[in-house]
Amino acid sequence: MAKSRFEYVKEFETHTKLLPETYIVVRIDGKNFHDFTKYYDFEKPNDIRALNLMNACAKNVLLKYKSECILAYGESDEYSFILRPDTQLYNRRNDKIATLFVSNFTSQYVVLWNNYFHDKPLNYKHLPSFDCRCVCYPTLKTVKDYLCWRYVDTHINNLYNTAFWKLIQNCGMTPKEAESKLSCTLSSDKNEILFKCCNVNYNDELEMFKKGSLINNKGEIMFIDVIKNIDNLFGA
Amino acid sequence: MAKSRFEYVKEFETHTKLLPETYIVVRIDGKNFHDFTKYYDFEKPNDIRALNLMNACAKNVLLKYKSECILAYGESDEYSFILRPDTQLYNRRNDKIATLFVSNFTSQYVVLWNNYFHDKPLNYKHLPSFDCRCVCYPTLKTVKDYLCWRYVDTHINNLYNTAFWKLIQNCGMTPKEAESKLSCTLSSDKNEILFKCCNVNYNDELEMFKKGSLINNKGEIMFIDVIKNIDNLFGA
Amino acid sequence: MAKSRFEYVKEFETHTKLLPETYIVVRIDGKNFHDFTKYYDFEKPNDIRALNLMNACAKNVLLKYKSECILAYGESDEYSFILRPDTQLYNRRNDKIATLFVSNFTSQYVVLWNNYFHDKPLNYKHLPSFDCRCVCYPTLKTVKDYLCWRYVDTHINNLYNTAFWKLIQNCGMTPKEAESKLSCTLSSDKNEILFKCCNVNYNDELEMFKKGSLINNKGEIMFIDVIKNIDNLFGA
Amino acid sequence: MAKSRFEYVKEFETHTKLLPETYIVVRIDGKNFHDFTKYYDFEKPNDIRALNLMNACAKNVLLKYKSECILAYGESDEYSFILRPDTQLYNRRNDKIATLFVSNFTSQYVVLWNNYFHDKPLNYKHLPSFDCRCVCYPTLKTVKDYLCWRYVDTHINNLYNTAFWKLIQNCGMTPKEAESKLSCTLSSDKNEILFKCCNVNYNDELEMFKKGSLINNKGEIMFIDVIKNIDNLFGA
Repeated sequence: MAKSRFEYVKEFETHTKLLPETYIVVRIDGKNFHDFTKYYDFEKPNDIRALNLMNACAKNVLLKYKSECILAYGESDEYSFILRPDTQLYNRRNDKIATLFVSNFTSQYVVLWNNYFHDKPLNYKHLPSFDCRCVCYPTLKTVKDYLCWRYVDTHINNLYNTAFWKLIQNCGMTPKEAESKLSCTLSSDKNEILFKCCNVNYNDELEMFKKGSLINNKGEIMFIDVIKNIDNLFGA
Repeated sequence: MAKSRFEYVKEFETHTKLLPETYIVVRIDGKNFHDFTKYYDFEKPNDIRALNLMNACAKNVLLKYKSECILAYGESDEYSFILRPDTQLYNRRNDKIATLFVSNFTSQYVVLWNNYFHDKPLNYKHLPSFDCRCVCYPTLKTVKDYLCWRYVDTHINNLYNTAFWKLIQNCGMTPKEAESKLSCTLSSDKNEILFKCCNVNYNDELEMFKKGSLINNKGEIMFIDVIKNIDNLFGA
Repeated sequence: MAKSRFEYVKEFETHTKLLPETYIVVRIDGKNFHDFTKYYDFEKPNDIRALNLMNACAKNVLLKYKSECILAYGESDEYSFILRPDTQLYNRRNDKIATLFVSNFTSQYVVLWNNYFHDKPLNYKHLPSFDCRCVCYPTLKTVKDYLCWRYVDTHINNLYNTAFWKLIQNCGMTPKEAESKLSCTLSSDKNEILFKCCNVNYNDELEMFKKGSLINNKGEIMFIDVIKNIDNLFGA
Repeated sequence: MAKSRFEYVKEFETHTKLLPETYIVVRIDGKNFHDFTKYYDFEKPNDIRALNLMNACAKNVLLKYKSECILAYGESDEYSFILRPDTQLYNRRNDKIATLFVSNFTSQYVVLWNNYFHDKPLNYKHLPSFDCRCVCYPTLKTVKDYLCWRYVDTHINNLYNTAFWKLIQNCGMTPKEAESKLSCTLSSDKNEILFKCCNVNYNDELEMFKKGSLINNKGEIMFIDVIKNIDNLFGA
């Protein structure tokens, strides 16, 4: 078709490609989920339905990109997809990968919402949204360390959140009091506080809460010690 | 909180900022809408409900970013949002802006779908998704030319599609025949073909089809000659 | 010619283009000139020969790129070249522009050295080198402000250095004493210290020292108040 | 020191970092060396003095960055430096590495010129300059393949150039005739043309011409079969 005299504006576009032969991590992150979870009254510290919804979305996205994805791992309102280093998906264009993953994930989240929260229809003024970024990891070691980083983060966050909310729910503390009780404590201290003050044995918490969710390339969702299984996960 | 020995993997992240004091265009584009529109049996060449749905989504996204957006313009399965050159939205980070716009837009599209297509509930295996890119325009002239480019594109595409589908619908041509009939024709030829062969006066087509949809900063949707109004649109 | 099976490694290259229709500033900066000037025993606070050498290099580089350069401005061991917003030099590739400007400048500096320091031949173990960066400015106002920024910086640095070295040379202070004498002083204080302690009237210093060197598109070197002349410099 | 109201212009700067834990190749390339070698009347197809000068410059640059460089490899007017994947040189900033390598190399080239071309002093209107780029290679295999790519290129170029110039020098052909004689020939054809038409046995050519120059981390210059030695070169 005829080109108009305005066509030149296309030259202002830039297209960043992700370095070939590196693992691509696509991480999706809930935007303002603090407010979102308040509005829809999520259970604290963990809402099983919300985590199952995240897992269902991630599974569907992973299966859509099955030939490109090694695995996915999620906790709370975030999910990481790890793509094979030889993937040519969208010509390895950064913006295409980041925006299409997040758009697919969001579609799933909104359409599947009713399956998990049928009592709370989505209000169009309080819709979920996610940001997304791509990060390249050049070696097997660095991409494994990425996954371990998210796993450790899951543990640290969940232990803290569990202690925080149990102090409020079981011990009647205010948020400020709970926060101050937990400041400067080690993991072992938090375990003890949970046990002695709240009568909660952290070991008895759900595996999904403590370990996050890992989805393998077949779409199977597992709650496992990622660090102990890190070699197997990458097919060593 | 304690930092783990895996924390170093954060250093592999990169964060591109968009050049300060330039207009930012955020363009959202339907992914594989050829298949999507077939699956949900959209009317051809234009499906009013689908365009109204796009406009409703864009309006809500624009109003969410009201203080940052000058206007939005859309046609078919794409929408462009033009942000003020002084916007500090998400610290002008390219990935944040692109992924959050597309995630918000997708949320709206899925949640509002039933208002426009109540007879065709979304199938979770055939969900809509969009890609998104950010482009910087350094001057008022270049950003105006960007908008004119999309406007001219709307005209060219719509005239072609209208002729293509009317030849099929009104004249019983096959897609191949229609394509060949239109190859190498000028705009005036297409107008004439429409009139003589299909008994369609292109002027009588809906303004929304011919001109695309422009949403001003107040959220008002208009179908206007963008080129003639280009100075007013940017508050000249 | 035949392509080898190693050819694929070219795909790892990236080529960043500078945003069209923006002013490009190319700034060259002496690397470790603190040591370099010590080794070749430059006069302090300013060495006229060294500044004249910088100006000669910059003039030759500017004239080489005459059709692309609006002007150049330098002080001490740095020089900024301002390119026209419509330049297509090296296809606006960032790395080509930055590396070729700095390579040309370095060639000039080494080959012209003997014209200014014939008594101090360059030792190949103590050679000058420069780094270089490209920065885009989208508007006339921002590129003018860039130039004013370097001009104000020249003034601030030169006033400080003049006071610092005169306290050492004329008043017998140690560098530490001079530094402490000047800490937390305003411009007016430094002027007064120079006058009262060192018997130096800052106004009598050379214009080149106080104002830096500006080279117009014809290659003429001027020592002028950049802020007062900023509109003329950009052909207002 | 006081910040001026112009300081904000610094925010327009961007600083690209090279992906951590990847090999960095820094390739320097002569600019317009076709004209440069004509002006200084280099011998064809290879000028020993010019190659020795390139090697001397590269050796000095490599030794300056000894703790960062694995090796360097050059042919004709280009040189590649391969940096260790764990280097933190200049914080892995792309522009710093590219511009400082090329500036150092250029300094060396100009200052050492007289050692190799004492009969042809450099004319400041015909100075050498080089461009430079950084490329990341994520794996040992890809960086080895990079080096093999340059090695194969050396062979292909030198065989062609040797045949081209010998046809002119020994057989009295014009450049056009030589070019046409060599078009569409394989390596074996060129060897035979050299032998039969020009009485030149390509095997007898200097190793430096045929194999390029490799500088190891100790600064030793070698002319070796890079492909055969590729594992040793990277300390396998």
